Amino acid sequence: MKGKAAIEGIFVPNIVPYDAQGRIAEDELRRIIRWLVRQGVTGFYPNGSMGEFIRLSYEERKRVLKIVVEEAAGKPILAGAAEPNVDLVLEMCRYCADLGCRAVSITGPYYYKLSQESIEQYFRELAAQSPIDIVVYNIPVFANEISIPVLKRLALDCPRIVGTKDTSKDMCRFQQTLQEIKGQRPDFAVLIGWEELLCTAMFMGADGGTLSSGGVAPEVVMKLYNEARAGRWHDAKQTQFKLLELFSLMVGAPNFPEGFRQGYELRGFKAGHARFPLSAHEEKLVAEMRGKLACVLADCGFAEAAGECRCGAGAPPIVPPHRVDVENLVREVMSKLLAQKV
Amino acid sequence: MKGKAAIEGIFVPNIVPYDAQGRIAEDELRRIIRWLVRQGVTGFYPNGSMGEFIRLSYEERKRVLKIVVEEAAGKPILAGAAEPNVDLVLEMCRYCADLGCRAVSITGPYYYKLSQESIEQYFRELAAQSPIDIVVYNIPVFANEISIPVLKRLALDCPRIVGTKDTSKDMCRFQQTLQEIKGQRPDFAVLIGWEELLCTAMFMGADGGTLSSGGVAPEVVMKLYNEARAGRWHDAKQTQFKLLELFSLMVGAPNFPEGFRQGYELRGFKAGHARFPLSAHEEKLVAEMRGKLACVLADCGFAEAAGECRCGAGAPPIVPPHRVDVENLVREVMSKLLAQKV
Amino acid sequence: MKGKAAIEGIFVPNIVPYDAQGRIAEDELRRIIRWLVRQGVTGFYPNGSMGEFIRLSYEERKRVLKIVVEEAAGKPILAGAAEPNVDLVLEMCRYCADLGCRAVSITGPYYYKLSQESIEQYFRELAAQSPIDIVVYNIPVFANEISIPVLKRLALDCPRIVGTKDTSKDMCRFQQTLQEIKGQRPDFAVLIGWEELLCTAMFMGADGGTLSSGGVAPEVVMKLYNEARAGRWHDAKQTQFKLLELFSLMVGAPNFPEGFRQGYELRGFKAGHARFPLSAHEEKLVAEMRGKLACVLADCGFAEAAGECRCGAGAPPIVPPHRVDVENLVREVMSKLLAQKV
Amino acid sequence: MKGKAAIEGIFVPNIVPYDAQGRIAEDELRRIIRWLVRQGVTGFYPNGSMGEFIRLSYEERKRVLKIVVEEAAGKPILAGAAEPNVDLVLEMCRYCADLGCRAVSITGPYYYKLSQESIEQYFRELAAQSPIDIVVYNIPVFANEISIPVLKRLALDCPRIVGTKDTSKDMCRFQQTLQEIKGQRPDFAVLIGWEELLCTAMFMGADGGTLSSGGVAPEVVMKLYNEARAGRWHDAKQTQFKLLELFSLMVGAPNFPEGFRQGYELRGFKAGHARFPLSAHEEKLVAEMRGKLACVLADCGFAEAAGECRCGAGAPPIVPPHRVDVENLVREVMSKLLAQKV
Repeated sequence: MKGKAAIEGIFVPNIVPYDAQGRIAEDELRRIIRWLVRQGVTGFYPNGSMGEFIRLSYEERKRVLKIVVEEAAGKPILAGAAEPNVDLVLEMCRYCADLGCRAVSITGPYYYKLSQESIEQYFRELAAQSPIDIVVYNIPVFANEISIPVLKRLALDCPRIVGTKDTSKDMCRFQQTLQEIKGQRPDFAVLIGWEELLCTAMFMGADGGTLSSGGVAPEVVMKLYNEARAGRWHDAKQTQFKLLELFSLMVGAPNFPEGFRQGYELRGFKAGHARFPLSAHEEKLVAEMRGKLACVLADCGFAEAAGECRCGAGAPPIVPPHRVDVENLVREVMSKLLAQKV
Repeated sequence: MKGKAAIEGIFVPNIVPYDAQGRIAEDELRRIIRWLVRQGVTGFYPNGSMGEFIRLSYEERKRVLKIVVEEAAGKPILAGAAEPNVDLVLEMCRYCADLGCRAVSITGPYYYKLSQESIEQYFRELAAQSPIDIVVYNIPVFANEISIPVLKRLALDCPRIVGTKDTSKDMCRFQQTLQEIKGQRPDFAVLIGWEELLCTAMFMGADGGTLSSGGVAPEVVMKLYNEARAGRWHDAKQTQFKLLELFSLMVGAPNFPEGFRQGYELRGFKAGHARFPLSAHEEKLVAEMRGKLACVLADCGFAEAAGECRCGAGAPPIVPPHRVDVENLVREVMSKLLAQKV
Repeated sequence: MKGKAAIEGIFVPNIVPYDAQGRIAEDELRRIIRWLVRQGVTGFYPNGSMGEFIRLSYEERKRVLKIVVEEAAGKPILAGAAEPNVDLVLEMCRYCADLGCRAVSITGPYYYKLSQESIEQYFRELAAQSPIDIVVYNIPVFANEISIPVLKRLALDCPRIVGTKDTSKDMCRFQQTLQEIKGQRPDFAVLIGWEELLCTAMFMGADGGTLSSGGVAPEVVMKLYNEARAGRWHDAKQTQFKLLELFSLMVGAPNFPEGFRQGYELRGFKAGHARFPLSAHEEKLVAEMRGKLACVLADCGFAEAAGECRCGAGAPPIVPPHRVDVENLVREVMSKLLAQKV
Repeated sequence: MKGKAAIEGIFVPNIVPYDAQGRIAEDELRRIIRWLVRQGVTGFYPNGSMGEFIRLSYEERKRVLKIVVEEAAGKPILAGAAEPNVDLVLEMCRYCADLGCRAVSITGPYYYKLSQESIEQYFRELAAQSPIDIVVYNIPVFANEISIPVLKRLALDCPRIVGTKDTSKDMCRFQQTLQEIKGQRPDFAVLIGWEELLCTAMFMGADGGTLSSGGVAPEVVMKLYNEARAGRWHDAKQTQFKLLELFSLMVGAPNFPEGFRQGYELRGFKAGHARFPLSAHEEKLVAEMRGKLACVLADCGFAEAAGECRCGAGAPPIVPPHRVDVENLVREVMSKLLAQKV
């Protein structure tokens, strides 16, 4: 396993656009991925909650994955592989390995409520047989939680389990993961899966995140990530509050991930109808949200969105193309000076 | 739709037995269904939670359903059809209709947390397009709850929605369903999906139930159902407490539906390994539970189970084959007399 | 302790009426208790959740208790004694014993979340030192739950703990209490504390209940209780559904126990303002509820309420004074005949 | 209200020590407060959850408050005033005002589950009548949550409501409070009430915290607070992880606040028995925790604790008395340089 890249940075969980017949709009999906490549995202996360993996057929999930890999321009892929039984998970793992994905991400089992012991055994069996590295994905709002003690034992016992994605919205748990697990296995990747905590997670030691907003506003998410990596915490904090504005609108819309799908539309993509109906009243709520989101996006400098903003917001693009990062250079010198002191 | 039978009685949600390679053990499944037919259960409920529908592939679910239909000897089938998106649900509905099932049962969507508005819209779309009657299945521990107001609107607006199965364990909700929905639409079938509440649900006006224990101890469940139907409430109450003993052991075992699968084994069937692993410690707990369950089953008079019971329990079979139901005859006469009085 | 009466029947948790200055309206409280005595309720339950015990001062709780005892005409008192620490609980126990109460009722501790072990130890200490019998009151929506295993150990080990009141709304738990605890200690009183489950609880073996509706519509609650005691299950079921109508309005009003306080007003008592404010919008909701409640009460034949009912409901009083219970007589003969058969 | 100090810094919620008879050990309480004054804590928070306010009588709460004020050497007092009804809260507010406290802190109501509308109305009435500033204390694990929209309206409408203490453990909520409320009313004090989030809360813009660990290890908590105030984030992060070790032991012990009371014992104070019993098994667990805590405290350099540590931990005191803070001086210069650049 030599030469494998560290799992770090921002992995974008893409939506799946559909055509008028409800089939995957493959060309539009390719266009989305190519655009995100140009925006400089670190990698991709197909077949996550954002990509409605649960509403696709098994064959459709394979197809989405293949398309993302083909368009990713060599960027690392963290592929959702939460199939409904062990054999199917392993079959998907082999498929991901064959396609050259960096790792798979597997949620706790969903539907049934299972004991922590059963969940641990489940991941142990997967880890023993998977031909590809595994990231354990904790998303207790949708699937069985994976407790810290279980995750710790898995991390310390199973070389195949190389990291975790945490979407529990729980900063306390995230810090415990850093302290109790990464503290003992420093190469264990700890990714945040919730936009509101990106800045504080990076501040405390995260390796990156998988963030749905990264598909709608990659400029903002990458700006925050890069500011955090560079230790420009004052800037990062401001960007985090801007990201909160965007995220709270999209995540607050009815029928997740509908809000994010509207965001893609505002960035110029045709998302089509998600695979779950909205009531007439909810469609109205979504339209209202979209109007507000257009203004926040316009205020970030995203020209595509400005057309739907009626409040006249608008700003220069959020990241100038060739910004000379004087601040960071100075900080680097500074930190070397400080290091000598200690 | 003339001549359709009322949905009432006990529908048994079967397990799916597996062979050593983890494939569906079709012959054993046929043997189970034929045995249950002989035991006099009202009908069957394939592809429910007990049948691990979520861990089967789409094709496997179709296969299970076909086998159950073939062996059911004409008894009515209530088929689980909680597929992951609207199109696939409707495809399964058509398949069920072609096989001659009585109705399909559809849970609230799982994985995503959805608003009640979205859930209502989902069932409205299904009801508008399904070629087969629909039972709305409320199981909030595993899938999104369907609220009483939503269920009421669906029941009053959608002819295709003909009943509900409630596995919320909530007797208050069950009574509200009877009062607010069945009170306004008397042909709406209200089925209880939780063993502990069979007696009280029947007492308050349920049409029957879908009960996993019915696959392990059909004699006990049918006895209780028949006692309730006959108004022999004193007997029904005693049978309910006996059923609690059986049920609490099976439902309390680790890794549902493992406990019930052990029950089938004790009745002489080969269940094989469920499609989710147990830890070594949990296997020990399951073995202990099995020993206790054997004694409770032996105590019901089920000879197959007696072999594993070490406490010497054993009793005559719970329902003598040709019992002359004097008590019930007398009660019927009595109730006619009473009716004249009013 | 010789000659102590069994704890059975309907114990009414009274509200506390207040005057314009927010002080306890003692005369009105006396009038309420005297009226309930005349209505034939079994006993009283002062200082419960309905009586806002938590919002009274320690001295006020003692005063309420004294008044209820003075007006109860010798009927048994089950007195709330959930004081904030062990010493104060015991002081209240002594006070209740001195006043001649039948028993005290003690909730799980509130505010802090405590382990079941701590809760068990708490009740053991109280049981060891209390001069008066104790009923363990499980109301998990407001205070720490007392698990069935803990309750079982307390019941089997502590003679001072003579019963339980269950307000968990959970019929499954209630049946477990009957089976696992009362099955082993038949004199252990098992009372239901939730109106919706009175009929089914009695049906399965409850000893009675403590029901707030009993203070607003004692005629209905006592009718249901008496029907259940007499085995007139068909009637009891109808009365239960009527009680649901009343109860769902009162319990659904904002700011519990406001809805019940309105019920007392409709029966001719001056409740005054509860000790917690309502918003203007909530006052409107309460007024709407009151209008509907007036009609349901009028429909029960309660003349006091008819004045506020605009829909013209009204009926003869719910229990005719000297009803000849032919039906029950016939049933009794019948059950003797059946008994001979077995 | 001119000249009132901003509410910022670390307010320590003290335990209440008891003597062998269970009475407040007043001398020991005085000794604790004087020691904390010497350790440089910002102020005090008597009658909080840590101080078992709910288990004291009304008179005892007043007594505790008086003692803390007398020994606080003029440091600001944020006094818990969550009395059980509006009149008693206001009476306590007047008492606190007379004693010269800086503000009172009031939790959402406990025991009853109340609507957000009722809770808002409750705080509006208090704010209209209180003679002293109010901090709204959100602690949803013990008392009704106060939602962000309600808190926002209170903050923008009521001058008497000057801040919030948040013990929800929810960093997302904390950030929303900063963005949506403090963003519009900058003088609104936003305090964190959960140790695990002190560093990130300060990083995002908190004004300080009320932290129980501050009574056991004031050196560590004040070090972290001061590092954060000085922008020494790298150091602050390390101190935060050290604080997690201390806190997780104390908060994880059975029967909160027992773990913290053991911490006071290890620092040389006689806490006595808390006002709630422990089972024998829990006493054993507490003793084990105490052994581990002694080592962590010894490792911080706290000599009093070293005696009970068997692993030989020990270190120089965590904050040398006259440390020359070269690092911070350099950073200050640096930040001025950077400011010029922008």
